[in-house]
Amino acid sequence: MKEECIPQGFRFGGHHCGLKSVAENPDYSLIVSDCDAVGVGVYTQNLVCAAPVLLCRERTPSGRIRAIVTNSGNANACTGQRGLDDARTMATDVAKQLGIEAEQVLVMSTGIIGEFLPMEKLTVASERGVAELQAGSAAFLAAAQGILTTDNGVKTAGSVVETSQGPVRIATMAKGAGMIGPNMATMLAAVTTDAKLNPEDAQQLLKAAVDKSFNCISVDGHTSTNDTVLLLANGRANESELTGADLVLVSQCIETTLIELAKQIPADGEGATHLIEINVQGAASQADAKRIAETVGSSNLVKTCITGNDPNWGRIASAAGYAGIPFELIGFKLFLNETLLFEGGEPCVFDPGIVSNSMASDSLVTIRIELAEGADSATIWTSDLTTDYVVFNSDYHT
Amino acid sequence: MKEECIPQGFRFGGHHCGLKSVAENPDYSLIVSDCDAVGVGVYTQNLVCAAPVLLCRERTPSGRIRAIVTNSGNANACTGQRGLDDARTMATDVAKQLGIEAEQVLVMSTGIIGEFLPMEKLTVASERGVAELQAGSAAFLAAAQGILTTDNGVKTAGSVVETSQGPVRIATMAKGAGMIGPNMATMLAAVTTDAKLNPEDAQQLLKAAVDKSFNCISVDGHTSTNDTVLLLANGRANESELTGADLVLVSQCIETTLIELAKQIPADGEGATHLIEINVQGAASQADAKRIAETVGSSNLVKTCITGNDPNWGRIASAAGYAGIPFELIGFKLFLNETLLFEGGEPCVFDPGIVSNSMASDSLVTIRIELAEGADSATIWTSDLTTDYVVFNSDYHT
Repeated sequence: MKEECIPQGFRFGGHHCGLKSVAENPDYSLIVSDCDAVGVGVYTQNLVCAAPVLLCRERTPSGRIRAIVTNSGNANACTGQRGLDDARTMATDVAKQLGIEAEQVLVMSTGIIGEFLPMEKLTVASERGVAELQAGSAAFLAAAQGILTTDNGVKTAGSVVETSQGPVRIATMAKGAGMIGPNMATMLAAVTTDAKLNPEDAQQLLKAAVDKSFNCISVDGHTSTNDTVLLLANGRANESELTGADLVLVSQCIETTLIELAKQIPADGEGATHLIEINVQGAASQADAKRIAETVGSSNLVKTCITGNDPNWGRIASAAGYAGIPFELIGFKLFLNETLLFEGGEPCVFDPGIVSNSMASDSLVTIRIELAEGADSATIWTSDLTTDYVVFNSDYHT
Repeated sequence: MKEECIPQGFRFGGHHCGLKSVAENPDYSLIVSDCDAVGVGVYTQNLVCAAPVLLCRERTPSGRIRAIVTNSGNANACTGQRGLDDARTMATDVAKQLGIEAEQVLVMSTGIIGEFLPMEKLTVASERGVAELQAGSAAFLAAAQGILTTDNGVKTAGSVVETSQGPVRIATMAKGAGMIGPNMATMLAAVTTDAKLNPEDAQQLLKAAVDKSFNCISVDGHTSTNDTVLLLANGRANESELTGADLVLVSQCIETTLIELAKQIPADGEGATHLIEINVQGAASQADAKRIAETVGSSNLVKTCITGNDPNWGRIASAAGYAGIPFELIGFKLFLNETLLFEGGEPCVFDPGIVSNSMASDSLVTIRIELAEGADSATIWTSDLTTDYVVFNSDYHT
């Protein structure tokens, strides 16, 4: 994260409070705005949703959010009334330390489902967390580390966009490597900006950006109980609320930044060796294109042939065929790493060795499907499926 | 397969004709009725469907089918007009040897997608295949072996049902271990019976039985291009067409037999160590119950925790939550191997070691979800996900 992307008027921090067993792994994270910020969120559509999601839904959208507190190592999901009380206490602890109201604090949790939080550790954590808050990119990085679980590294993306009222800074962080399935929102992410936005504009631009970013990624298609994307806009960069061309500029910049952030999740998918980009063109609607891309991207048979650098295109074509979207096979073209493999219902002549080598030589593998149904397209990103994923997830809990 | 289940008036056979590389593995299979039989089928709903599926769709339902010829090792899918010509030639070759019309022969193929069949081998195979046809269970077994691909063993199920017109025999065979996703029909299966049925009744009872059997199983959720279930009823057991109570009896017996047959597919799923039975009760509709069961059963996170004998019930509850079916969490109960783990939104106290041991000690693991939405239920069967599945499917083609 470049220093120039860190928005003005924010402080950050993260440390190990004891939820994770390894003392080197931070599990508590704070993001604090020095003034009231517009806070909006997009949340999991899972019916079985976690306590912090219920809390955030109550408290957003809002014009006076001051902080986001996040713990990793425990999802506080499937924990009933006690879980909801614990989430409120996490916010209240932070509010006390900051001298603000509890309702000005949002909460995110991630980790094992179905266990209660050890609240005494979290209360102590709020004292240390607030005491250690700092501005700048090093503190931002510490906060980004505190939200990770099975991730191999931090996931951040930042931008600066020039508006008629001066530069606006956008700094974002996310976590996620497993239980990743796009359904309205995915996993934990926080967007901080010093843009001045009204809550309605903020909510709308966040929803639109999430649809093009987090809702276009998957690792295993399993929609988590805790998926949350929060945006805090504290307005420090601008005199008045952004509108018109400025608002469009900032919206586009947030979308681009979130796509950059979201792609880091399947690239770091549990056990993954390839990031798979699936682009469907020539569909009758964007929803059709996305449905086909998602169906291809969620096939274990497609994922495993990419793991093996195997241009086994029949698996891709057959997955497209059961997506439930009507298309004429005669107009169907399938490209793997830009090589045409299947066209108009008949196999193409190609050198499997060359295509296989291209798959082996780059962690990014591209699948492109062209239809002759219309002019709409969609792109999604997913992980391949390896023995490491299976080993890891066969032995996560007990 | 018990000898008494083999229907009268059928002959069978299977041998190695050279589609598979290992000479011990049969890859050509014949089922022949000595008289005209009612022939009906249920086929893949995949838009990208194989040539033999197109051929069978043209030729069924029919009152005068005489034979089913099946090859394994090559799916004859994504092969365009040449593939369709090849499927017709497979039928014509058999018809010539039997002295019947080509339209009286149905064709099934299974194996690699996108390669053309070596027709000279198949023409030779038709001569040997017809010459070696025999009645009885040993020949039935040879035919059942000839349709296998990655299966570890034959999949057969048989029954005898007493009607007012005497006993009716039902003998069934199936293949399938990977690319198994229920969508109207799944994989290859053949049902032979000497019941006397009219084509409409036969079609209706086959469709109903497939909905309760093959459409309730999955291994990897990937709907194949070649899924076909064919039923031949040659009427040898009865003087006149079965109706009323007799028809109900035979329909129920075929359904029960196909459930027994279908469950053998996920039990033998590629790399599988557990057969997972998922039962959802108390749903507002059967479709709702099935949708929840399928969503749980298609989660790689659920499959891998069962591979690891890990009662990580949060993965099951969260998968139920993203099935897209509304339910009240307060009425939700989750049982794993009959132990209650989660009820009314709160975790239950249980001994993980005891549940884990029960998972490790039996290849069958049962998940039961009880809702308080209504009185409908559904049961599906699927495989767990192991490193062997990934290794196998990372290296199948090239």
